[in-house]
Amino acid sequence: MSAITKITDLPEYMATMGRRAAKAAKALRLASGRTRAAAISAMASAIRDNSKAILKANAEDMAAGKTKGLSPAMLDRLELSPERIEAIARSLEAIAALPDPVGMEDAHYAPPNGLKIARIRVPIGVIGIIYESRPNVTADAGALCVKSGNAAILRAGSESLRSALAIHKALVKGLKSADLPADCVQLIATTDRDAVGHMLGGISGAIDLIIPRGGKSLVARVQDEARIPVLAHLEGICHSYVHEDADFKKARAIVFNAKMRRTGICGATETLLIDERIADGFLPFIAGDLLDAGCELRACKRSRAILPGMNKVTQEDWSTEYLDAILSIKIVDNIDEALAHIDQYSSGHTDAIITENDTAAAQFINSVDSAITVHNASTQFADGGEFGFGAEIGIATGRLHARGPVGAAQLTTYKYAVRGDGHIRPA
Amino acid sequence: MSAITKITDLPEYMATMGRRAAKAAKALRLASGRTRAAAISAMASAIRDNSKAILKANAEDMAAGKTKGLSPAMLDRLELSPERIEAIARSLEAIAALPDPVGMEDAHYAPPNGLKIARIRVPIGVIGIIYESRPNVTADAGALCVKSGNAAILRAGSESLRSALAIHKALVKGLKSADLPADCVQLIATTDRDAVGHMLGGISGAIDLIIPRGGKSLVARVQDEARIPVLAHLEGICHSYVHEDADFKKARAIVFNAKMRRTGICGATETLLIDERIADGFLPFIAGDLLDAGCELRACKRSRAILPGMNKVTQEDWSTEYLDAILSIKIVDNIDEALAHIDQYSSGHTDAIITENDTAAAQFINSVDSAITVHNASTQFADGGEFGFGAEIGIATGRLHARGPVGAAQLTTYKYAVRGDGHIRPA
Repeated sequence: MSAITKITDLPEYMATMGRRAAKAAKALRLASGRTRAAAISAMASAIRDNSKAILKANAEDMAAGKTKGLSPAMLDRLELSPERIEAIARSLEAIAALPDPVGMEDAHYAPPNGLKIARIRVPIGVIGIIYESRPNVTADAGALCVKSGNAAILRAGSESLRSALAIHKALVKGLKSADLPADCVQLIATTDRDAVGHMLGGISGAIDLIIPRGGKSLVARVQDEARIPVLAHLEGICHSYVHEDADFKKARAIVFNAKMRRTGICGATETLLIDERIADGFLPFIAGDLLDAGCELRACKRSRAILPGMNKVTQEDWSTEYLDAILSIKIVDNIDEALAHIDQYSSGHTDAIITENDTAAAQFINSVDSAITVHNASTQFADGGEFGFGAEIGIATGRLHARGPVGAAQLTTYKYAVRGDGHIRPA
Repeated sequence: MSAITKITDLPEYMATMGRRAAKAAKALRLASGRTRAAAISAMASAIRDNSKAILKANAEDMAAGKTKGLSPAMLDRLELSPERIEAIARSLEAIAALPDPVGMEDAHYAPPNGLKIARIRVPIGVIGIIYESRPNVTADAGALCVKSGNAAILRAGSESLRSALAIHKALVKGLKSADLPADCVQLIATTDRDAVGHMLGGISGAIDLIIPRGGKSLVARVQDEARIPVLAHLEGICHSYVHEDADFKKARAIVFNAKMRRTGICGATETLLIDERIADGFLPFIAGDLLDAGCELRACKRSRAILPGMNKVTQEDWSTEYLDAILSIKIVDNIDEALAHIDQYSSGHTDAIITENDTAAAQFINSVDSAITVHNASTQFADGGEFGFGAEIGIATGRLHARGPVGAAQLTTYKYAVRGDGHIRPA
């Protein structure tokens, strides 16, 4: 059931998958929102019904992973339990319940020529998703694609492929129960690494968009090698800037949360910037909070003049995504120096200002060129769920199509409907 | 003044241009809409003031082109006159007067966590535009980029480079008079073909987007070789489908206009589909109109059974963008056959249905997967100006970022502004 298929002719296997995806995409594009939602609800039921088989496949992955010597963190990401399976099913139900992003008219134009023009959201087509060891991504990614009317080609990490195959079987049951083609969500059933290369080449035009979801080395490979569009973020070097007009109580709570709520996520703050005029009054308190919680502080010379116990920051720190309980700290002269630092070192993901001064906040939001700019809140809100988008497939830091959280709506594109009554265009 | 520069080290020349563009893009991003509009208005004045120098440079291009043996059509596209220069200046003034697309908040979210989130249009960054012999593209493309807050790197066709350099000089005057960096619009001052290769590679990340504007061979090269995103259309194989419930009078006028108003534009109809039930009554009239106007008709067997005089259509015709007074004609059984034909042969540009039946129109608009779908109007309305977008840089038929007419608004992307009041994210 969860057997990994032996593929003798990978190019032909991938080409067939591409053709099937293109055909399924057409069926999905024409399916109603109700049908797509029903398929996703049925996927959730099938996940629950098949939980024993999924757990059995996952146990095989876990055993192989232990033999292979995977790290405890990787094994934890890989491991499923009845509770985690229930969470997967609930996540699918939440995606099914999202408003339908397809068919929405999001702009209207009435030019002087008398035509009525509507801009209508439509699916992108076929989306390739390449991910690592978390088995839930199989379900979430497949369901988000179906919700947005896109066919999916999924490539799971080799260490989680048995679990992914078992989950995929449930997704296919859901599709079939809603009379949608099984090929709406396909999973590559081999661990052959060359399959990724085929995906990055687009399989002769079959794949419209690639989304990598995983660590920096995976994303970097995809961004370097893809010959088709990619939605992704390479890293989240996020800043929290405490302006001289900050409310100290808010600032302490926000900065602590931005760093420490979860240190391993891309929206975690990695660098704290503090205005020189308030550094004496603010730094000792936030530093105390963070040190008490076990956070390492790497600070600039001016910061260490206030609090000598902190470690020295190096030039490299400003460009480092720690994903850990480590924070780099810099005292800046003013907002201009803060903006210059962010302009140089931000990865374009999420950057925040904490201030009661609306002019400074407006200047920050206008100047910072990141996908998400934040005023008086934690950078850890950088998440599709917190934006109210429902589940997200990731955060994008590129400049085209979609930036920030990528949920079902961001997986659509648009077309125009032009309505006339015999209109011909004058010479 | 209109001398073509000798470049000894092209890689360094292009790298410098990339760095300058990135720097200028930042200045443009922070400039107000009023400043950007003032620069474009000043460009228009400088075009008028420099018209003698522009005409002189153009005369040199024309002389070289005649020596080189350019076709009369190419020479016509290349040639400037006082009237054409005035039209360039007016086009710039129209772009200056467009609403500012930058800074517009085009969506708002108020998720349950209490944050206020706005989605704000921002410039893309640096746009590379590769075009052929029309000198006005230098002005239009440069001004559209400045309007949308993007720095431009322009690559003119070698046969029009002297004219482009003279026009570019006026654009720089306009930028300077508004205190914007001259590097906001740069023009590659060499005919070295390797410069295009550098642009398609993105100049080490300096260029965010490439827009080719020209014939099919240019666009095909750009689409094949670019390592960065491209907005373009390769061809416009547009269909007009006369449904059985069409109003014949409207249909005759629309189809004639869709084919014959201008046969050389991408939105011109290349294939006419007619429902079998009305073919007897409709085909002879529209065929007569078209034949009288000098249009060649290439028709299917069923069509020739009604009107034997027409030429035979071949399989290849259905995939051919004539850009000429030629029309392929097919009689279809019903809307399903029409949709299947369009699905197979449309280039995804613009396709129209002519019918008084709203159910059929809705089915057509829902099913046809092209950038522009049209009901009861000419496909020749596929144009940014007709959509009310002002000037356009072209039509896009890709699936990501922007589809259909690409004007100043479509040359922007977005970022989010998240506004809180001390919000921290719960565990």
